[in-house]
Amino acid sequence: MNIIHKLIIIFVIFIIIWFLPVPSGVEPEGIHLFAIFSATIIGLILKPISMGGIVFIGVVLTALTDTLPLRDALSGFANPTVWLIVSAFLIARGFIKTGLGKRVAFILIKAFGRKSIGLSYSLVMSEFILSPAMPSNTARAGGIIYPIIRSLCSAFGSEPEKSPRKIGAFLILAQYHADVVISAMFLTSMAANPLAAEITKNITGLELQWTTWALGAIVPGILSLSLIPLVIYKLIPPEIKESSKSRVVADEELQKMGKMKRPEIIMAGIFIFVLLFWITSNFHKINVTTIALFGVGLMLIFGVINWSDVLSEKGAWDAMIWFGGLVMMAGGLYNLGIIEWFGDTISNYISYLPMTFALILTLLIYFYSHYGFASMTAHITALLPVFLAVAIGVGTPPLLAALALAYFSNLNASLTHYATGPAPIYFNAGFVDQITWWKIGFLISVLNIIIWVGIGFPYWKLCGFW
Amino acid sequence: MNIIHKLIIIFVIFIIIWFLPVPSGVEPEGIHLFAIFSATIIGLILKPISMGGIVFIGVVLTALTDTLPLRDALSGFANPTVWLIVSAFLIARGFIKTGLGKRVAFILIKAFGRKSIGLSYSLVMSEFILSPAMPSNTARAGGIIYPIIRSLCSAFGSEPEKSPRKIGAFLILAQYHADVVISAMFLTSMAANPLAAEITKNITGLELQWTTWALGAIVPGILSLSLIPLVIYKLIPPEIKESSKSRVVADEELQKMGKMKRPEIIMAGIFIFVLLFWITSNFHKINVTTIALFGVGLMLIFGVINWSDVLSEKGAWDAMIWFGGLVMMAGGLYNLGIIEWFGDTISNYISYLPMTFALILTLLIYFYSHYGFASMTAHITALLPVFLAVAIGVGTPPLLAALALAYFSNLNASLTHYATGPAPIYFNAGFVDQITWWKIGFLISVLNIIIWVGIGFPYWKLCGFW
Repeated sequence: MNIIHKLIIIFVIFIIIWFLPVPSGVEPEGIHLFAIFSATIIGLILKPISMGGIVFIGVVLTALTDTLPLRDALSGFANPTVWLIVSAFLIARGFIKTGLGKRVAFILIKAFGRKSIGLSYSLVMSEFILSPAMPSNTARAGGIIYPIIRSLCSAFGSEPEKSPRKIGAFLILAQYHADVVISAMFLTSMAANPLAAEITKNITGLELQWTTWALGAIVPGILSLSLIPLVIYKLIPPEIKESSKSRVVADEELQKMGKMKRPEIIMAGIFIFVLLFWITSNFHKINVTTIALFGVGLMLIFGVINWSDVLSEKGAWDAMIWFGGLVMMAGGLYNLGIIEWFGDTISNYISYLPMTFALILTLLIYFYSHYGFASMTAHITALLPVFLAVAIGVGTPPLLAALALAYFSNLNASLTHYATGPAPIYFNAGFVDQITWWKIGFLISVLNIIIWVGIGFPYWKLCGFW
Repeated sequence: MNIIHKLIIIFVIFIIIWFLPVPSGVEPEGIHLFAIFSATIIGLILKPISMGGIVFIGVVLTALTDTLPLRDALSGFANPTVWLIVSAFLIARGFIKTGLGKRVAFILIKAFGRKSIGLSYSLVMSEFILSPAMPSNTARAGGIIYPIIRSLCSAFGSEPEKSPRKIGAFLILAQYHADVVISAMFLTSMAANPLAAEITKNITGLELQWTTWALGAIVPGILSLSLIPLVIYKLIPPEIKESSKSRVVADEELQKMGKMKRPEIIMAGIFIFVLLFWITSNFHKINVTTIALFGVGLMLIFGVINWSDVLSEKGAWDAMIWFGGLVMMAGGLYNLGIIEWFGDTISNYISYLPMTFALILTLLIYFYSHYGFASMTAHITALLPVFLAVAIGVGTPPLLAALALAYFSNLNASLTHYATGPAPIYFNAGFVDQITWWKIGFLISVLNIIIWVGIGFPYWKLCGFW
């Protein structure tokens, strides 16, 4: 299917929805925005041009067709949540530029890398430490951790063609599935998590704060992270069990890096400072975005990054546009009555089911529909509003529904080798064939659902979330 | 003065103003925003870090000190005028990427380059044609035209050390002063012009529309552009009067480029389309920003530029941040009553003067204060609001005051070799010494003031502007 075909499909869908009859309770512009939104989502799935370009054109159409006034169409670009993500990308740039991200990983490998299983845990822990300030799981798992894993594999003589099971397949799969869980754990550990929070705010009026999110995720998250390397170790046992060599590699790298340099120390200080402010945000009430922006400001003043680094951080501007555009559309659809109408319609169909059954059905359909998506963001944007409305429609306490769906929006990425940015990177490394990838993916999905529902639901009850 | 000293100066000014007593009629936050704004302006002048970084930190402080709510502090990034500039940067990228910008220049040189004076006019005309869609006068005069001039000089054997007066000094000075006038001619031909329009809207409630701006500038602008190469030709006569060689060079370059390629043709079509829509915006009432964004959308769909070009266009993101931040501050200062208070205070001092005299004095002080600025943007941000308030305070019709000051904000860049982005580029070429540069600059400033006041004022009367 070439770009012209894709554009035609998108255009036809746009036109059909544009001229649909307007349901009662929905504003006339609502159906127009829904047409633009649907075309955008189909665009995100078909990708005739990049994600950012598609959302950009969606924003343009929103203004051009007078569906929303220009100021409203652009409003996403001033959204504090969008700027939280932009800031986090810029903070992450500091980790990469100063080498602090690598240093953390190598220190942990040196400390815990004696056995293969310990090596995996130390890599997972490194990613976990970086995650609250690195919302691009692609940059984190793909950019920082993957190159380390890849060079460790070579050091152990584990290569994709001849010896994938020596240690490569194990490290790759354990890390990928850990990344998926880590992405679920913080509002700022995956780029589209704040989008889930925005949607939640629109639909339920609840603020999914940084602390609420982290508190809800910490117990099931740590549990998942503790089990995943172990389970993968049993399923795809590495031939090499002893991995002291990795400690030699880590030590060499640390030697090469030398003592922590001034920018690295400052970067570590700013990161801890931002993290402390985030964690305490319930007390001082300073917005998390303001704190993140302040962190970036400090990085600029202390010269950890310069302005040219900021402008070159394409990921930040990409996220600003696609995320800002989607936030604007999601808000508009809600305001114009579309989401409520959808939720009501579907809820009516399943309202005869008992609440618990209806909720679990909703969650499972939401989770496994990710087989059809190549991006967590597309999935969240397209389905979260409706599934959240449905879950609440069948009687689920709103915060429970919101958190469960938000976490599931990340956990569902375990399923395929195209589920989220790092998936193709880890899969393309070539250590694991597709059938194994999907099998393991399905098993881990079951494990995660058991943990996050079985332990999560009662734990959130304890937290007072429902 | 190193970066630490600069930061200390900025910080001291910030603290002093922060704790000043609040004048009556000004909100308490007004004086705080004024402290942040003043520190930002001093920052733009001292440049301890890049312009964008300074404004970014200003935005952060606005939110962090709770001077404005976070959403308001970020509001500039959703400002339609800011996105007009972002779009124009992206459209300009298409000119550069497809080679269309160069082709226009070479075609004009081939057509009119027989004599040195004709060569200069053809270069000026090229820049004029590109200008409505190229708000960065640095990219336009520095990025597209300068390399052509420089290679023509070499083709004529005019080099900075041995033979600057052969043709180099003439072409350089004529083009630089033409660039200054061209920058004044369209809302979209200089990056900070929309800022002047925003400030005007805040203070007078008047919309300086694209068409109003262009209509007001076209007569005095064409007059200035017609005279400048001629005047420079008399003042710094080139030794080479015949320049047919330039036509050979242009012809060779056009041969090298071959026939217009598909992307170039599409780019030309989109540019003309956008221009027509801009010119007719009074009739169809579609916002100029929407039109520009639509142009960018078409460029993406037709593949003239791709999304990676968009994300790599650092100038666009730089402008979005510094411009968005300054727009936010300028709006805030007005809303909080600071500007009115300032204007009233100064007007009181000069209100005993006759109106015409007071107005001319105001305009001249505004113009020649540019000796103290290294950027049109800094000058506009720092002084335009107050001078506009003063000009209106002494009884000038608002639209007249706004247009005169807006045009003067560009024309004042003739004065020095650091007045605006292209100035150091053209000066550093080395064909003109500093004393000559300043002398010519002063003469041209007088010429421009005579034209834009002597012809401009009566012409604007005819236009019904006052």
